[in-house]
Amino acid sequence: MSDGFHMTPDEFRRHGQEVVEWVAEYMERVGELPIASTVLPGEIRARLPEAAPEEPEPFAALLRDLDDVVLPGITHWQAPGWFAYFPANASGPSILAELAAAGLGAQGMLWTTSPALTEIEAHVLDWLVDLLGLPAHFKTAVGPGGGVIQMSASDSTHLVHVVARDRAVTGGAPIDRLVAYSSAQAHSSVERGARVAGFSHVRLLDVDTVFALRAGALREAIEQDRAAGLEPTIVTSAVGTTGTGAVDPIADIAAIALEHDLWHHVDAAWAGSAMLCEEQRHHQAGAERADSYTFNPHKWLFTNFDCNVLWVADRAPFIAALSSLPPYLRNAASESGEVIDYRDWHVPLGRRFRALKLWWVLRSYGATGLRHHLREHIALAVELGRRVDAHPRLERVAPVSFALVCLRHVDGNVATDAVAKAINAHSDLLVTPSAIGDMRFIRVAVGQTHTTSEDVERLWKAMTDVI
Amino acid sequence: MSDGFHMTPDEFRRHGQEVVEWVAEYMERVGELPIASTVLPGEIRARLPEAAPEEPEPFAALLRDLDDVVLPGITHWQAPGWFAYFPANASGPSILAELAAAGLGAQGMLWTTSPALTEIEAHVLDWLVDLLGLPAHFKTAVGPGGGVIQMSASDSTHLVHVVARDRAVTGGAPIDRLVAYSSAQAHSSVERGARVAGFSHVRLLDVDTVFALRAGALREAIEQDRAAGLEPTIVTSAVGTTGTGAVDPIADIAAIALEHDLWHHVDAAWAGSAMLCEEQRHHQAGAERADSYTFNPHKWLFTNFDCNVLWVADRAPFIAALSSLPPYLRNAASESGEVIDYRDWHVPLGRRFRALKLWWVLRSYGATGLRHHLREHIALAVELGRRVDAHPRLERVAPVSFALVCLRHVDGNVATDAVAKAINAHSDLLVTPSAIGDMRFIRVAVGQTHTTSEDVERLWKAMTDVI
Repeated sequence: MSDGFHMTPDEFRRHGQEVVEWVAEYMERVGELPIASTVLPGEIRARLPEAAPEEPEPFAALLRDLDDVVLPGITHWQAPGWFAYFPANASGPSILAELAAAGLGAQGMLWTTSPALTEIEAHVLDWLVDLLGLPAHFKTAVGPGGGVIQMSASDSTHLVHVVARDRAVTGGAPIDRLVAYSSAQAHSSVERGARVAGFSHVRLLDVDTVFALRAGALREAIEQDRAAGLEPTIVTSAVGTTGTGAVDPIADIAAIALEHDLWHHVDAAWAGSAMLCEEQRHHQAGAERADSYTFNPHKWLFTNFDCNVLWVADRAPFIAALSSLPPYLRNAASESGEVIDYRDWHVPLGRRFRALKLWWVLRSYGATGLRHHLREHIALAVELGRRVDAHPRLERVAPVSFALVCLRHVDGNVATDAVAKAINAHSDLLVTPSAIGDMRFIRVAVGQTHTTSEDVERLWKAMTDVI
Repeated sequence: MSDGFHMTPDEFRRHGQEVVEWVAEYMERVGELPIASTVLPGEIRARLPEAAPEEPEPFAALLRDLDDVVLPGITHWQAPGWFAYFPANASGPSILAELAAAGLGAQGMLWTTSPALTEIEAHVLDWLVDLLGLPAHFKTAVGPGGGVIQMSASDSTHLVHVVARDRAVTGGAPIDRLVAYSSAQAHSSVERGARVAGFSHVRLLDVDTVFALRAGALREAIEQDRAAGLEPTIVTSAVGTTGTGAVDPIADIAAIALEHDLWHHVDAAWAGSAMLCEEQRHHQAGAERADSYTFNPHKWLFTNFDCNVLWVADRAPFIAALSSLPPYLRNAASESGEVIDYRDWHVPLGRRFRALKLWWVLRSYGATGLRHHLREHIALAVELGRRVDAHPRLERVAPVSFALVCLRHVDGNVATDAVAKAINAHSDLLVTPSAIGDMRFIRVAVGQTHTTSEDVERLWKAMTDVI
């Protein structure tokens, strides 16, 4: 039987080198491309044929369309002038790990379906427990906790709401009485995760002047809800909110959660990476008593999306809530109890080899290299914050947090939006305009893999030229 | 400022070619590697250093460990002798699309964060509606339905349970009264998805002699539950169960779902790919009236894991259940209503460019090429089924379904397990032993990208040599 319509290994060699070259050139020119796509709705679709091709197309056509169809519709997250949202960083070793993992095409639903996928994941996440200064019981090799890679922090946050819900329901609480808490500044995934998990009561609590959760507000809400016959079940605290990078009082929340028997989930999706630097760890003091902790190497740790890490302090209830064992998945290794089957750690059954890129990034940069770049980004943000403070027509709206600077024009919303618009009119800069209540402001997230002081200088000039 | 610890574009060129070569060689030798990893629990971890490296390691060390540490722990899903589980196929164009997508590093949470990601995804899924013979209202461009790529069928199944739950609760039903239905042979993800979505009543219904859901059993269960004050909410039907490839009576279930106002979800995770072949479509007659339909190009359509497709007949309730719009995500395109923001179509907020590999696979093979390989796999399975029927000591336990053959030794369980063990003792063959009730059997899933008649011959010889 012939190879039929499959690409042969030799064709793969040739086309693989073409794609590697394409990506290398993309790396070299991404800073010069217009950072934000300017296509209109429907413009990309209009370039595509109405129906799928009946006959095979040559690889050259695919590569050509990467330039002709895809690139005009890309907003360049990898450009060094990227100060928008939070970054979603790629890096050379991470991209190549994606290639190797796709080439292996292994699927790690069970330990036995490729032990390396499970063991490298468990091991590298144990490495990260130490790198982030988290407690040893989060390690799979120590227990009773453990770590797992998920697709996004939203998935992790949703899952812990499911597990906390099941714990409460098993304890006799009616599902429609359960209450989930976070600050009003928590990421939208917290409210969404709670709702998807079936919580009908979600409390978004008051924040203080720096947009951190007020521990007193949490305590009052729990007491009121309990008095009203509801069942306080879970609280999510943030180490670095998306809005302004606010850090909730983790230790106070941990104490309240322990006192009232709530699940305490720490969302450090973006700022978790900064915990590699010991001088930042005071921000998460108290997290060692949390029930779960999540952070995204795919944001600020040079590891391609998707790569979210979730640690739980006790993996038993987690697995109990999510496990299933149909006959076609039974195997000796699972039954021995000596292995981890990650299918029991999330909603999806199948899983690819995402740990490879995390392993390659940690080894390629070394902890030293990662800390170097994280500190560089933080220093750039601190310096930008100083300049804002010194400028008569700009002001910060929150403390510089890790590598996020939130600022506005002193004249108010209209002037602030005009500054944002002026910055984003530069084809090599992108910031995210945002708001808290009626106050408009500009988020400057420093942290794209290749952002340097020159990029921050360009941003500063673009900002100050118009005011 | 220097490049610091980052891999430069030129280093990426060099190492990229090394990884391409490694993958090409892997493709050439995967058939000769021992298909199932034989490492013991903990063996891979024991090869890894206790702590993350402080200093950067050279790329050569990473590549070396791909051979020394990773390969021994890989069970080779891409080997042509893979007849286990269902396949999780890779292919050249798909692997290279993963590389290109990782290189772009774009994140498609909103249309505006990279319009090409959203528009190519929507368009290619519309192509697939036609390729699979599904109704035009599943198309995003036609509506009111639409398609979205998820990580796994488990995610899709979980999500539709959430949406059906919210519809019922909004209609006044208490959440703890809702009931979800499927056959006892449905994939474990159906029960799990329902439980994760908060259903406390899950009915796994009787099957007929070919392991398909009995429509009568569904009707009776609905009537009994309603009489007991419960709220029948959703039914999942299977086009090709995981156990034996059984096809539920989709049209009958569709009629019952319409009559009783249940959400009807069709799970064609594996067999959906076969619908590219018109002669297979009678199996899904009735699916045009379903509320949702899911299939996995990452199983049998030569598109690397992860790539699951979910279509819904009406996207409005789907989006209503899952949307959120914090201020930092607001933008003119979203507010115009002219674009799709896929963040509202699943639990994760972020998303990578998975549509690229699906687009490249459809174009590289063409519909003709895909049908050629699907029909080849099906023909191989049909021929294997004939041989089983003609053999005095083997028997099928279910009809040959698409490309799945389920068989046992006529002497019963012990003899059947011995056959499975004998097959799997060959280092180039892998099958999955399974069971229904007390009956042990062997699942032979034909469909790995490179499986040919020679591989099936080897399997047949291994099977019949020992009986």
